[in-house]
Amino acid sequence: MTEHQDRPAAAMTAAQAELIRRLAAQLRVDSIRCSTQASSGHPTSSLSAADLMAVLLERHLRYDWDHPALATNDHLIFSKGHASPLLYSMYRAVGVVEEDELIHTYRQFGGRLQGHPTPVLPWVDVATGSLGQGLPDAVGVALAGRYLDRLPYRTWVLCGDSELAEGSIWEALDKAGYYKLGNLTAIVDVNRLGQDGPTELEWDMDRYARRVDAFGAQPIVIDGHDISAIDEALTRARSRPDQPTVILAKTIKAKGVPEIEDQNGWHGKALPKDMAERAVAALGGPSNLRITTALPEPGTPAITPDPGAAVSLPRWEVGEKVATRAAFGAALSALAARPEIVVLDGEVGNSTHAGDFKDAAPDRYFEMFIAEQQLIASAVGLSVRGYIAFAASFAAFLVSRPFDFIRMAGVSQASIRLVGTHAGVEVGQDGPSQMALEDIAAIRAVHSSIVLYPADGPSTAQLVQTMADTPGISYLRATRVHTRSSMVQRKNSRSAAAKSTTQAPTTP
Amino acid sequence: MTEHQDRPAAAMTAAQAELIRRLAAQLRVDSIRCSTQASSGHPTSSLSAADLMAVLLERHLRYDWDHPALATNDHLIFSKGHASPLLYSMYRAVGVVEEDELIHTYRQFGGRLQGHPTPVLPWVDVATGSLGQGLPDAVGVALAGRYLDRLPYRTWVLCGDSELAEGSIWEALDKAGYYKLGNLTAIVDVNRLGQDGPTELEWDMDRYARRVDAFGAQPIVIDGHDISAIDEALTRARSRPDQPTVILAKTIKAKGVPEIEDQNGWHGKALPKDMAERAVAALGGPSNLRITTALPEPGTPAITPDPGAAVSLPRWEVGEKVATRAAFGAALSALAARPEIVVLDGEVGNSTHAGDFKDAAPDRYFEMFIAEQQLIASAVGLSVRGYIAFAASFAAFLVSRPFDFIRMAGVSQASIRLVGTHAGVEVGQDGPSQMALEDIAAIRAVHSSIVLYPADGPSTAQLVQTMADTPGISYLRATRVHTRSSMVQRKNSRSAAAKSTTQAPTTP
Repeated sequence: MTEHQDRPAAAMTAAQAELIRRLAAQLRVDSIRCSTQASSGHPTSSLSAADLMAVLLERHLRYDWDHPALATNDHLIFSKGHASPLLYSMYRAVGVVEEDELIHTYRQFGGRLQGHPTPVLPWVDVATGSLGQGLPDAVGVALAGRYLDRLPYRTWVLCGDSELAEGSIWEALDKAGYYKLGNLTAIVDVNRLGQDGPTELEWDMDRYARRVDAFGAQPIVIDGHDISAIDEALTRARSRPDQPTVILAKTIKAKGVPEIEDQNGWHGKALPKDMAERAVAALGGPSNLRITTALPEPGTPAITPDPGAAVSLPRWEVGEKVATRAAFGAALSALAARPEIVVLDGEVGNSTHAGDFKDAAPDRYFEMFIAEQQLIASAVGLSVRGYIAFAASFAAFLVSRPFDFIRMAGVSQASIRLVGTHAGVEVGQDGPSQMALEDIAAIRAVHSSIVLYPADGPSTAQLVQTMADTPGISYLRATRVHTRSSMVQRKNSRSAAAKSTTQAPTTP
Repeated sequence: MTEHQDRPAAAMTAAQAELIRRLAAQLRVDSIRCSTQASSGHPTSSLSAADLMAVLLERHLRYDWDHPALATNDHLIFSKGHASPLLYSMYRAVGVVEEDELIHTYRQFGGRLQGHPTPVLPWVDVATGSLGQGLPDAVGVALAGRYLDRLPYRTWVLCGDSELAEGSIWEALDKAGYYKLGNLTAIVDVNRLGQDGPTELEWDMDRYARRVDAFGAQPIVIDGHDISAIDEALTRARSRPDQPTVILAKTIKAKGVPEIEDQNGWHGKALPKDMAERAVAALGGPSNLRITTALPEPGTPAITPDPGAAVSLPRWEVGEKVATRAAFGAALSALAARPEIVVLDGEVGNSTHAGDFKDAAPDRYFEMFIAEQQLIASAVGLSVRGYIAFAASFAAFLVSRPFDFIRMAGVSQASIRLVGTHAGVEVGQDGPSQMALEDIAAIRAVHSSIVLYPADGPSTAQLVQTMADTPGISYLRATRVHTRSSMVQRKNSRSAAAKSTTQAPTTP
């Protein structure tokens, strides 16, 4: 779909390699310093990935740090959010976080350098810290890049090896392959040790590679501490336009601190002060290396949002009968007039009526199949690039199955629109498994959420339009049966907000 | 671990093959009849799997239908629960459901032949209907068979192809391979069509096979309508003691009704009356074939529950400080004296203190790694065989990530014990992603749930013991920090129920 060719990377010079080594040492030193100062955090999980991130930062990431919202910027998501010391040390290396903030505010109350990254930091796209979510979110970002923005930015994701046990990772790779997301690269830090002992596959790189390959991505196995090998792998990842790449990097946990390298029992523990001092000294001591990352090439998104576009909502006379799910589909189709509206389906679009949108705007309709976690993650990822994504499925599965993704969308302060149909006991014949009964309680417990439960077609149409411009997590609950229209539709429906949403909270 | 060798199947005779063909025709006829009578249901998804189930029923399933609770029985789980017409038609074929009940009560209010199977039927282990859950549950049953009961029963699972998009399926296969569950066979009905058009992989059997192989199971690709090929595959599955098998059966949706075979638009639709009549006639008309399935070989579970075993709960004096998570671990270890108690960990047992149990009873401690959906599913599966499973992780992930599995455990009326630690805002330094804030609201919305939130060590210990004998879903919320003991522990703690549980609902 994209017409852009990635700019080839020139071969790494000896000077660059040396710079990268110094950068990696600084990232390690800073990861140790900030976590020891905080007396908590995950330095050993940061140390294993320092070489990977040093090469990425110096050689491959294209990012304008002064303009984090720039459409052409690459995206960097730490799916292993607990490696936040490393991420924040990278921010220091590029000059957007000062040494004092890094060392003295990390994990402190009121500070923005939280234990796990959130978008209170302008360079963080999505909150991570619930494992197995960063890569699925990144699929949404990459979908935006390839199919909507049509810009050559890349999405880089640092994954842990433990999180590859989460099914959501495989939902993500499956969809990344299906949608030919050559703009997506996952870098897996295979350091063999989880929180509580060895991971299931430890350093069985071949097994990882076969899984990745079978799910449709290009696997590249490397030594994650070999600067040249890392650079070559990242270059190869950039040169495959139609297939995602997973770099499987064999690493050593706590690499750079020999006395605890590859040792169990050091997950999520700051180094004691004396050990930290020894380690920092052995790594060359604190430094003030400042890295200039490449800027993205200029470009303009193929889609320009048009929130003021004329939308002709469907209308029903008082007394006319329509199922609210059908009203949802009709309203959604009308909203297709706004080019920033995108729809995600969980292989039930013919029943939820989300599928109606496909006829109106096939290029902005993404089939996620029966993978509700990825359904929500894609919506979150698309929201990173400003797209207004509606994700729809049966209410029983839309809320419960990906509930942790909805929870994390709240932490991300993401704006996503969820529509669950066939809600409640009305689907009696299908049995209790098909009845959404827990959805209202569950959703309302999530930060920044609102629940909308319209009684008829006109209110549904109005609320669907209102959702598009409502920040936070909005959830519309629709039914299968036809209900009689009781609301008189306003003529100027464009600006009218339904009464039931006037008390809706918004994200702070 | 198991010392049993599976009984080899004798070669299929021509008479058996003919019987199976007649059985398959009857299963098809009955699937059509009951769904057309109900004017709803999923006949086409039943027709595609009729040959698979006919061979299984006549040749491989070992089940005493008069004693569904028999420890030695095989287990049959329809992960594609919407194929309930087929399952119920099998029940009719073995004589436990009468023709009148099947045809006239299917999907009717008050009937037990619900749209998706639940354990209100004595032959149904777990409720299905939320795709991607039957196979994970079956992993729990198979764990019980291999490691606890140590009996040669097999667990057979019928999966749909659409549900292979769910990450939970891959969590399940991963764990099945890791735990060498040769007693587990998944039969995937690859009929190419989902609810809303073709599945992602359609009939790409090779891709499916590579994924299955990479995740540690034996893939066998067959024509799902070739009686001999099915029989051979099921025989091969039984002959591999230490590896699960996934039979990938290429099938045709609506097989047996040529006018709608392999056609989109017929998912979840009963055949119209005239079409049903034509189809039933072409299939030979209604019949009354009665199948006698093989009985299981006699056997006794290796573990005999001992709910009256002496349990010495840990004790703390008033004023003594202990973290409730530590009290949980200590109480759990004490409960190891009861051989029916089993513990499941999500790779954080050192933090939740679930790991304490490992020292007391390593054979009853199962590591699920970072796969919370499988963590809950394993508990549900173990409960099928009467084991009292405690599943523990950080509260933030234990409830939200597998919430749909907890919901379905409620539909299954399963008894499972969940313990989430590090609950609430006390983990401030770690950031909001690590804080369980939604857990109480979410869990309490699930049928048959109770939430327990003890303030100190003594009440925690008491409640953990109470949970073991509490039916339904009990969730204990524990904290990281040390709290001062304020409750005076009763001497006869064995029988005392904590006050806070006296209002607890129980499953009906």
